[in-house]
Amino acid sequence: MTDEDDRVIRELADRQEITDLLTAYCRAVDLYHPDEVAALFTEDCVVDYGETLGGASGAAAVASSLRAGLARYEATSHSLSNVHVVFDGPDRAEGITYVHAWHKMRGGKPDAHLWAQYHDVFVRTPEGWRIAERRLQVLGEHDFPLAWHKVDRAPVES
Amino acid sequence: MTDEDDRVIRELADRQEITDLLTAYCRAVDLYHPDEVAALFTEDCVVDYGETLGGASGAAAVASSLRAGLARYEATSHSLSNVHVVFDGPDRAEGITYVHAWHKMRGGKPDAHLWAQYHDVFVRTPEGWRIAERRLQVLGEHDFPLAWHKVDRAPVES
Amino acid sequence: MTDEDDRVIRELADRQEITDLLTAYCRAVDLYHPDEVAALFTEDCVVDYGETLGGASGAAAVASSLRAGLARYEATSHSLSNVHVVFDGPDRAEGITYVHAWHKMRGGKPDAHLWAQYHDVFVRTPEGWRIAERRLQVLGEHDFPLAWHKVDRAPVES
Repeated sequence: MTDEDDRVIRELADRQEITDLLTAYCRAVDLYHPDEVAALFTEDCVVDYGETLGGASGAAAVASSLRAGLARYEATSHSLSNVHVVFDGPDRAEGITYVHAWHKMRGGKPDAHLWAQYHDVFVRTPEGWRIAERRLQVLGEHDFPLAWHKVDRAPVES
Repeated sequence: MTDEDDRVIRELADRQEITDLLTAYCRAVDLYHPDEVAALFTEDCVVDYGETLGGASGAAAVASSLRAGLARYEATSHSLSNVHVVFDGPDRAEGITYVHAWHKMRGGKPDAHLWAQYHDVFVRTPEGWRIAERRLQVLGEHDFPLAWHKVDRAPVES
Repeated sequence: MTDEDDRVIRELADRQEITDLLTAYCRAVDLYHPDEVAALFTEDCVVDYGETLGGASGAAAVASSLRAGLARYEATSHSLSNVHVVFDGPDRAEGITYVHAWHKMRGGKPDAHLWAQYHDVFVRTPEGWRIAERRLQVLGEHDFPLAWHKVDRAPVES
């Protein structure tokens, strides 16, 4: 086996571990297990979900923020797509992943939908890959008019 | 090549075959080819789509159930995400995969949406990987108020 | 390493490059970067988005068509799922990939949704994998009643 073969195998395996990390987040969020979510982030992580939902530093703060934030909904579904991961080296990667987040509101209000991108930094720790940075950038929403960070869509020339 | 490299390559290839199995189900369902769906299950499979849609044992019964069930809709789209597969050994795996199922109803009724998880068991057969067990667990729905098995979302402490 | 191992590794790596190509299309479309989209197609590509949106031959024509077409929307989100790629040989592959395309309309009209399949041909070029053919086949829509190529869903026997 050449060194290049070896690099390809390692990267495919790491990519799979990062994908598993991304989907574990969704399952934990949608079952309302904020402590499990915290375990997916580094101790010194930084997240930013937009102006209304705010940011947090550190895995414990992320868990606390999600515990309060997710309690507002009767149910949620977070579906990922377009997973794109680029390695900066053997132990660090950056990613952009689409999410469609569906929220069933309490009190009979209409379902809230979000179409967005997670802009992430992943790092390898002794316990495996973890999310070190997460910033939510929003493509659009329906009945979910919070103050989001929007993606930087190029202007249409008229 | 080390034994560990070999194991990684085999598992990545098996994972791809299982992913192809999962997406083949969606294409066959959405083109209304129930016989093709049957070929994706083991002969002695067990499926459970919830109280209203019911369960079935055996690939032929699954095909028969889908033939009747899907005939009710004018069109469907089944989109998978968050594919998560864990191997129990070389020839068996368990999976949780999200599905967003869109249904165009007959007679001008509003579109029915389902956000759910397939909880699956996959087994390797001489013909390749097949679905041995499938249980649908529902995160939420819109205009699709059947009696579903719901996911076990943790209660919100007040 | 056996020849079969080598083939499996190459194919997994190629599959990842094709997946990255597919998701790059979505990011470029949703940020309104038509020139970046053009770079994902072969010079002599052929695309067909249906009767209303029309087709185009050549990467420059695809970019021009997308520049005009996407300008109509205030925002878009293209989410892929069910990626299915089959190799015809070392340098050519065919794919069927689901897309849910959400469009925020100008002027307060209701959001337009499309559930469809991209039927693609991919070829390896000196610069990497590119899309040589793309044909959009539609499973269904909501508030998006253009003249589409529909998928060939089997008739329901009564």
